[in-house]
Amino acid sequence: SQIAEQIRQLVAKGILSPESRVPSTRALADQLGVSRNTVALAYDLLIGEGLLDVESSAGTRVSPKLPAAFFRAEPSPSGATDGEARPYTRRPLAFRGRAPRLDQSDSPALAYDFRLGQPDPSFFPLSIWRRLIVERVARASSALVRYGDPAGYLPLRAAIAEHLRVARGIRCEASHVVIVAGCQEGLNLVARLLVTSGVDTVVENPCYEGASLVLSSYGGNLIAIPVDDEGISVDRLPHAAALAYVTPSHQFPLGPTLSLTRRFALLDWSRKTGAYLVEDDYDSDFRYEGSPLLALSALDAQGATIYLGTFSKSIGPGLRLGYAVFPQSLIEQAIAAKGLLDNGHPWLEQAAAAEFLASGGFERHLQRIRRRYLMRRDCLLHELGRHFGPCRVDGAEGGMHVAWHLPAGAPSARAMQLRLRTEGVGIYTLPDGPAQVLEPVDGEDRVVLLGYPCLTEDRIRYAVERMARAAFS
Amino acid sequence: SQIAEQIRQLVAKGILSPESRVPSTRALADQLGVSRNTVALAYDLLIGEGLLDVESSAGTRVSPKLPAAFFRAEPSPSGATDGEARPYTRRPLAFRGRAPRLDQSDSPALAYDFRLGQPDPSFFPLSIWRRLIVERVARASSALVRYGDPAGYLPLRAAIAEHLRVARGIRCEASHVVIVAGCQEGLNLVARLLVTSGVDTVVENPCYEGASLVLSSYGGNLIAIPVDDEGISVDRLPHAAALAYVTPSHQFPLGPTLSLTRRFALLDWSRKTGAYLVEDDYDSDFRYEGSPLLALSALDAQGATIYLGTFSKSIGPGLRLGYAVFPQSLIEQAIAAKGLLDNGHPWLEQAAAAEFLASGGFERHLQRIRRRYLMRRDCLLHELGRHFGPCRVDGAEGGMHVAWHLPAGAPSARAMQLRLRTEGVGIYTLPDGPAQVLEPVDGEDRVVLLGYPCLTEDRIRYAVERMARAAFS
Repeated sequence: SQIAEQIRQLVAKGILSPESRVPSTRALADQLGVSRNTVALAYDLLIGEGLLDVESSAGTRVSPKLPAAFFRAEPSPSGATDGEARPYTRRPLAFRGRAPRLDQSDSPALAYDFRLGQPDPSFFPLSIWRRLIVERVARASSALVRYGDPAGYLPLRAAIAEHLRVARGIRCEASHVVIVAGCQEGLNLVARLLVTSGVDTVVENPCYEGASLVLSSYGGNLIAIPVDDEGISVDRLPHAAALAYVTPSHQFPLGPTLSLTRRFALLDWSRKTGAYLVEDDYDSDFRYEGSPLLALSALDAQGATIYLGTFSKSIGPGLRLGYAVFPQSLIEQAIAAKGLLDNGHPWLEQAAAAEFLASGGFERHLQRIRRRYLMRRDCLLHELGRHFGPCRVDGAEGGMHVAWHLPAGAPSARAMQLRLRTEGVGIYTLPDGPAQVLEPVDGEDRVVLLGYPCLTEDRIRYAVERMARAAFS
Repeated sequence: SQIAEQIRQLVAKGILSPESRVPSTRALADQLGVSRNTVALAYDLLIGEGLLDVESSAGTRVSPKLPAAFFRAEPSPSGATDGEARPYTRRPLAFRGRAPRLDQSDSPALAYDFRLGQPDPSFFPLSIWRRLIVERVARASSALVRYGDPAGYLPLRAAIAEHLRVARGIRCEASHVVIVAGCQEGLNLVARLLVTSGVDTVVENPCYEGASLVLSSYGGNLIAIPVDDEGISVDRLPHAAALAYVTPSHQFPLGPTLSLTRRFALLDWSRKTGAYLVEDDYDSDFRYEGSPLLALSALDAQGATIYLGTFSKSIGPGLRLGYAVFPQSLIEQAIAAKGLLDNGHPWLEQAAAAEFLASGGFERHLQRIRRRYLMRRDCLLHELGRHFGPCRVDGAEGGMHVAWHLPAGAPSARAMQLRLRTEGVGIYTLPDGPAQVLEPVDGEDRVVLLGYPCLTEDRIRYAVERMARAAFS
């Protein structure tokens, strides 16, 4: 009768649904460690109740025509211990957090949307990528059916090492490159290696929230260092920290390039304190003016820097493909942590990207979109100048967005944003994210972030005209 | 002269290599915040030294013919602070661990290798998968160029929910399914949500090391509960814990199926203690005998179970595709943790898998390989019986390996393994991994783990004959 009652409950809760088969008497007897007769008796009882019926071909099943009242909607009147009827005491979660706010929308709700961090979808090298995928998958044999190297597909790691040598001046070996699912996963590896509860970690203020959220989620104590027009204020660095997270090529979100003097100062600070430097080079593929500065990692002769790069901006976020370069002192544990995290990245995207880089297709693709983004940037700067007169625009030398400082007379960034939204123009303030303002920033309400890659020149002209109207009407 | 010295050091350290261009005087002046003249003076100094030379077309570059002695191989005689010359004090790493030992070899070194956890590569549905990938990538438009839902591609989540309802009796909604890079990443999410330093976590003994390593890497205190022929010994469970990690369908590595009685006992324990139950259903797609038991999650009416599944065994590990089903109390934070981890899984594999499941192709594929694995299992059991007489074999009802208990008279598992290796036959003992023996197991040296999916019947016959010779010669 215990067995019968358990089955009754399974049916009542909808776990065994009408017409579903129940185990054979023999199978259930084996499982419960009782005799087959005992199970048969229970089944007979339930057949007698009309709960089960017997189809000679398909074995015993739950009756298809049970009364609706049988399915318990209220707490069990029988007083049986039904979990759903009373609350449980579960311990508080070890993790309370949120993901970075990235734009996941397929089509923008705003026709003139200066959203951040999104490459222009129409520049995705779709035909080349399709060909690469089709070729790779046609040749795929063992790669799909076995576990790969947790550190990533070696030809891709080698192609990335070569790209970094040429484009960023970083001398690194394929063996120090770990393939990750975007910068975000690279940041997680860094945090796992270096951060535990209460550990001091330096971030820029304002900071990319994907970084600050990860570091604090592992218990890191964030030390927010202000940013000026040469980048992070190195003279404000603390006497000790586990790491400093920086965006030297194009500070996110304020835009300045970290000056060479400060790069050396950061390296000196690292030498003195033992802190690692985490260089997030998220959009360094786009540089429009001046010689590209060598990466911070390229200047590092002490093995102090971890370099994070991504194909999310240069190819597309849907690939979830990025890379991290670890120094000798960290690489072994970094690969162990990546293996323990997910046993490595899917093979196909890696194989396609390896060929894209090695064939030179990636470099040609970059040159093409760089030219186009440059035209859009020039148009934006020109229009801002035309409508607003001389005004301060930071971060225009590279990347995918600028930080525009509202001229005197214009309302606050937030007020501008609200006015423009009704006209289909999207502009962004510092607190909108994916930036995080950890300490108040001087003139915070005068800074407007404008991501221009997704807007054609026509749209930019229209949008800036609207911005001028919103500012001065 | 400071500028000149910095450039000298960059060249000496090989960071600026011969023939590489240096920034224009204007660019460097901007970066350093000095006048253009100052930089020009420094450059002139270095040109005078022969370190730089000027090509009218390409700007200033590092001289191609520097004396070898200039490149410092020894610590700087000038006494300049050169990082490489002295060791740094870096704080100890927050993470010291290792990845689970999974077979990453392309072709087995052993011709008759009963390795664990590896599906037969020749059964990979290559032509179907290629077609699915080619079709998906041809239709891919925005999916490759934008961030997807961190929880995963909705059609795949819906197809998995339906598969779990039909195959495992689990009532779940697509909104509770999170797409992960294999069970391993699912385990990481669980650990992030529930485990901090010193938190008690229940595991089976012996345990899948991918689980025990993750839980302890987040600081969990492992409580190892013995396993007998009904699965985990529920009467040995502690009075409190954050979670219990179990493999009810086919205990890894010993093989038993958790009995229905114990499933209910586990659920009762969870209700009393508030512990979550983590059900790793890694190879439940392969069930050869009896009705498949409902998943533990299917019996759970209290929202206490987290269900982990993977396509690594049923399709292929190279896809890195798995799923986790979280109860209502955890799903929101699980998705946040996944987003913070890597902003979600690559789109293409998800899209192909969604179509594979929805079209019924996955179910047909499973039926086909289930039949073939069953033949191999039957052959193995038959050959063991023929050569060794009646002997205890656990875990034969399902999965991809059995735990064979060596008959009296045979040497230890380790001795057998060593003898057979020279003959090209690979058999596995409990400590070989990817199992972890946390507490001594009775008769541990008598247990041999045999994964049979990758061996044809002919090879199984040959291998078991060799095993008999090794045992009794």
